[in-house]
Amino acid sequence: MNIKIYITEKIKDKDELNAIKEYEKRLSRYCKFKIITIKSVDELSKLPEKIYKIKISPKGQIISSEDLAERINRYGLTGKSDVAFILDQEIDADEHLALSKMTMGTGISTTVLIEQIYRAYRIMKNEPYHK
Amino acid sequence: MNIKIYITEKIKDKDELNAIKEYEKRLSRYCKFKIITIKSVDELSKLPEKIYKIKISPKGQIISSEDLAERINRYGLTGKSDVAFILDQEIDADEHLALSKMTMGTGISTTVLIEQIYRAYRIMKNEPYHK
Repeated sequence: MNIKIYITEKIKDKDELNAIKEYEKRLSRYCKFKIITIKSVDELSKLPEKIYKIKISPKGQIISSEDLAERINRYGLTGKSDVAFILDQEIDADEHLALSKMTMGTGISTTVLIEQIYRAYRIMKNEPYHK
Repeated sequence: MNIKIYITEKIKDKDELNAIKEYEKRLSRYCKFKIITIKSVDELSKLPEKIYKIKISPKGQIISSEDLAERINRYGLTGKSDVAFILDQEIDADEHLALSKMTMGTGISTTVLIEQIYRAYRIMKNEPYHK
C-alpha cells in the first residue's frame, strides 16, 4: 500500500522531524510511506481519482487505534492501494476522521498520525507494540 | 497554579524528551509545571486531598483545546491551585478526560498534553499561537 500524508505547513522543529523520521523508518517494513508538503491546497485537487482521500481534522469522526487498523486493513482488501491522509484542509475527501478534538500544531499532528499508522500495522499483524 | 503530569513509564526517546523540555520552558511563563515519573501507582493514592486529580485516558471525556482552556481557567478561579494530570492509570480522580480515543505511547501522550496545557494558557490570555 502507498500511504501519503499531505501537510501544508513545513515542519521545522528538529525534535518533531527526528521523531517523524524514526517512524518513517519503522513504517517502511509495512508500506510505502511519504510525507508531502504542498505549497497550495490547489495541488490537492489535482490528485488522481484513484487515490483514497482521508481528511484529518478535529471536526472529523473520532476513532480509536483499532478502528484505524480495521480501516487500513479494509482499504487494502478493497483495492484502495493509494491512500492519502490530508491534514487540516477544507477539501472534499472520501472520509473525514479526527485524531483528537484538540487543535494540534502540524508537527505534533503529523507525529501522532504516523505513530497511529505504524500502530495500525502492528495491530493488524498481531505484533506487540511497546512505546 | 501548580500543574503536574504523572506518568509511570520513563520517557527515554531523545526527541520526545527534547520536545517536552521545550514546552516546559515555554510553560514556565504561566505556571509552575513538573512531570513526575512514579515507580508504582500506589504513590498516587498518597497524593494530598487538596490536589485536583484529572485522569487522562482514551476512555475519558473527549474535549477540545478551548474546553481545556476553560477548565484550567475555572480551576484557578475556584481555588484549585494544585492540579495533577495522571496518564493512563486506573485510579479514582476528580475528572476523567481524553486527549484522543487513540492509544498513544507515554512519550507522545505527554508531548500532546503539555502542548495542550501551553495552548490553553495562550487561549486564556488571548495570545496568538502559531506552531
